[in-house]
Amino acid sequence: MAEFEFEIIKQDKNSRARAGAIHTRRGDIETPYFVPVGTLASVRGLDSSDLQMLGAQCALINTYYLHLKPGDETIKKLGGTHKFMNFGLPLFSDSGGFQAFSLGLAREHNIGKIGNFFPEETVEVKPQQDLPRGENLTKITDKGVEFKSIYDGSRHFFDAKKSMEIQSNLDSDIIMAFDECTSPLSDYDYTKIAMARTHDWAKQSLEYHNKDQAIYGIIQGGYFKDLRDISAKFINDLPFDGIAIGGSLGKTKADMHEIIDWVIPQLDGRPRHLLGIGEIDDIFESVEQGIDTFDCVAATRNARRGCLFILPESGGSLANKFRLNISGAKYKNDGDPIDANCHCPVCGNYSRAYLHHLHNARELSYFRLATIHNLWFMLRLMEKIRESIKNGRFAELEKEWLG
Amino acid sequence: MAEFEFEIIKQDKNSRARAGAIHTRRGDIETPYFVPVGTLASVRGLDSSDLQMLGAQCALINTYYLHLKPGDETIKKLGGTHKFMNFGLPLFSDSGGFQAFSLGLAREHNIGKIGNFFPEETVEVKPQQDLPRGENLTKITDKGVEFKSIYDGSRHFFDAKKSMEIQSNLDSDIIMAFDECTSPLSDYDYTKIAMARTHDWAKQSLEYHNKDQAIYGIIQGGYFKDLRDISAKFINDLPFDGIAIGGSLGKTKADMHEIIDWVIPQLDGRPRHLLGIGEIDDIFESVEQGIDTFDCVAATRNARRGCLFILPESGGSLANKFRLNISGAKYKNDGDPIDANCHCPVCGNYSRAYLHHLHNARELSYFRLATIHNLWFMLRLMEKIRESIKNGRFAELEKEWLG
Repeated sequence: MAEFEFEIIKQDKNSRARAGAIHTRRGDIETPYFVPVGTLASVRGLDSSDLQMLGAQCALINTYYLHLKPGDETIKKLGGTHKFMNFGLPLFSDSGGFQAFSLGLAREHNIGKIGNFFPEETVEVKPQQDLPRGENLTKITDKGVEFKSIYDGSRHFFDAKKSMEIQSNLDSDIIMAFDECTSPLSDYDYTKIAMARTHDWAKQSLEYHNKDQAIYGIIQGGYFKDLRDISAKFINDLPFDGIAIGGSLGKTKADMHEIIDWVIPQLDGRPRHLLGIGEIDDIFESVEQGIDTFDCVAATRNARRGCLFILPESGGSLANKFRLNISGAKYKNDGDPIDANCHCPVCGNYSRAYLHHLHNARELSYFRLATIHNLWFMLRLMEKIRESIKNGRFAELEKEWLG
Repeated sequence: MAEFEFEIIKQDKNSRARAGAIHTRRGDIETPYFVPVGTLASVRGLDSSDLQMLGAQCALINTYYLHLKPGDETIKKLGGTHKFMNFGLPLFSDSGGFQAFSLGLAREHNIGKIGNFFPEETVEVKPQQDLPRGENLTKITDKGVEFKSIYDGSRHFFDAKKSMEIQSNLDSDIIMAFDECTSPLSDYDYTKIAMARTHDWAKQSLEYHNKDQAIYGIIQGGYFKDLRDISAKFINDLPFDGIAIGGSLGKTKADMHEIIDWVIPQLDGRPRHLLGIGEIDDIFESVEQGIDTFDCVAATRNARRGCLFILPESGGSLANKFRLNISGAKYKNDGDPIDANCHCPVCGNYSRAYLHHLHNARELSYFRLATIHNLWFMLRLMEKIRESIKNGRFAELEKEWLG
């Protein structure tokens, strides 16, 4: 049995929000928590010392991409991902099932898991061989998913057993069952078939996974209430250590919140992870609905693209998505920090003008500084959220932020 | 008068090598010293906290590129480059004269200042508007140099007065006189004409420069002994605070050493800077010849391209240029640090396998980690060289390294 325990420290009185702690073999994760994403065993632009400085409690790595580069067997030989990236704290790994969507229909139709524009996943991974955009790189059957590599076009077959084997090689602490993440374009019939597959794979994942690793089951079912009901019940009835909610999550954020609202009441006390979601408003809404952890590339990807977080007391709001775009000409001569109320080392040391310059000159140092700021912002926000739940003032904090 | 003093602490008995200290208004530089290059007010991939961690005593910024981005007037408004990049230690700035070569004949013919392949300067600056390679972007007359911007094709005219004005705006501590850096392709007659211009501009630079800044004159004259003699004498006779030796430096390293050997005996006790040179063997040879400071992008650029330094006791030698290429397949499963005898934080925390992975996956974090290692290596080498001169064992150290 995996060393794994979830403790709810404080249940909010006015919502499903809860403050807790996930105990893993590599330490605790205080929840609610935003898990930084380090796709290729590196949070893009940062090293593990930076994660330590940021006070990151854990990180998430990507099974599919690490299988391709440098290879999970290579990582195993080198003593596992923690040793590889010199990060001693808990690691989540996804199962590769999200890539069944992101490299499949999402790539083919250029859409996201909640229906809006999908910032192409491979842009920053920089494939050495550019495959034509729009190509669906997956073939999905009941047996599993065949992927065509974005790097060299080679073919890779993932099924539940393979996904468990890779995640075992990676030696992550919290792994995900293999699933098929469907698309907002998928109709009821297709989503039902895919869900049935996901359920079969869930059972197989439980059977094949390394028992020293904690494992989360993934609920699918798209934006169809009866399917989500069935899936929530099915996954909840299996002896997973935790429960994840997978996409597709409808066409709008309202749809997403509706889906979460369908699912959560069917779940018991195990920890709940919302896959791939993490804008500020999503975080508040999802915490309110009882989600414990999230992972999302938005905070770090947006940083690289010039979007830097600002606090409500510094002008951040739902309208501006709590961020400014540092590429703007108005920051050229702006000697103030990104956010005068932020205590991150970037705001302590550098001006908007300097970051504007580094961004616009495409200096490498920009990417790290921007990422440090945005992650600091997210992790401190999660601290505030946890604190507010413990102090019975989560609703107040949410109102301060979302209005 | 600029606050500037050079003190020779120890003169080597067997060579022209000397250990000293340059006192500037922003602190001391112990010499011999390798000055890290931060072209756009950022040592590529690093921030100023990294420079502090590395124990960098100073850095060099680029007048031409900072004039274009973000503009020296912008930097002036923001309180100068030190405040802009949050770096409190002495800054050198070059004069823009090197770009008369690098964006001119070097770009046109794809050659370097010592005749070999010239790694195109603009590759990493990433122009937004790609101008055709091979275009000479300069027009040089006795009045000055007209540059066509690599960014937007706009035209910029530099003369001695303008260069001094820009460097004053940048508020660097040690500035360079405006010069024309000629090419190994330039013949005797052209080199002589260019040298005469450089001498005129030297006098003008002395006249127009901000008197709070220390200023170095630049010796030109190509690979022509009589011209180098004339130039060394001319520049040495002017009241500069220090003397720099500019390229072109012949067609081979032997030519370069010959040129330095022609020039040095003509110079008095002021500090001597060798512009744009910094391979390991060059450093030893130049220190031996009496050079006090160098600047060079090689250490940092090579890092970004996968070439990481290794010490002699770890297999580094003249033959392998004291480096390994981390992209090599043999490092894929190599759990050892880059250099087991190196005490840098990268070698303390990460394996060759991890750096190989980050490099080959083009992860952003690679560039910083590689740069930290290579700069640590160079700065520690300079410490060893200084120490060896003080202890009367420079020749021994040189032999340990170069054989």
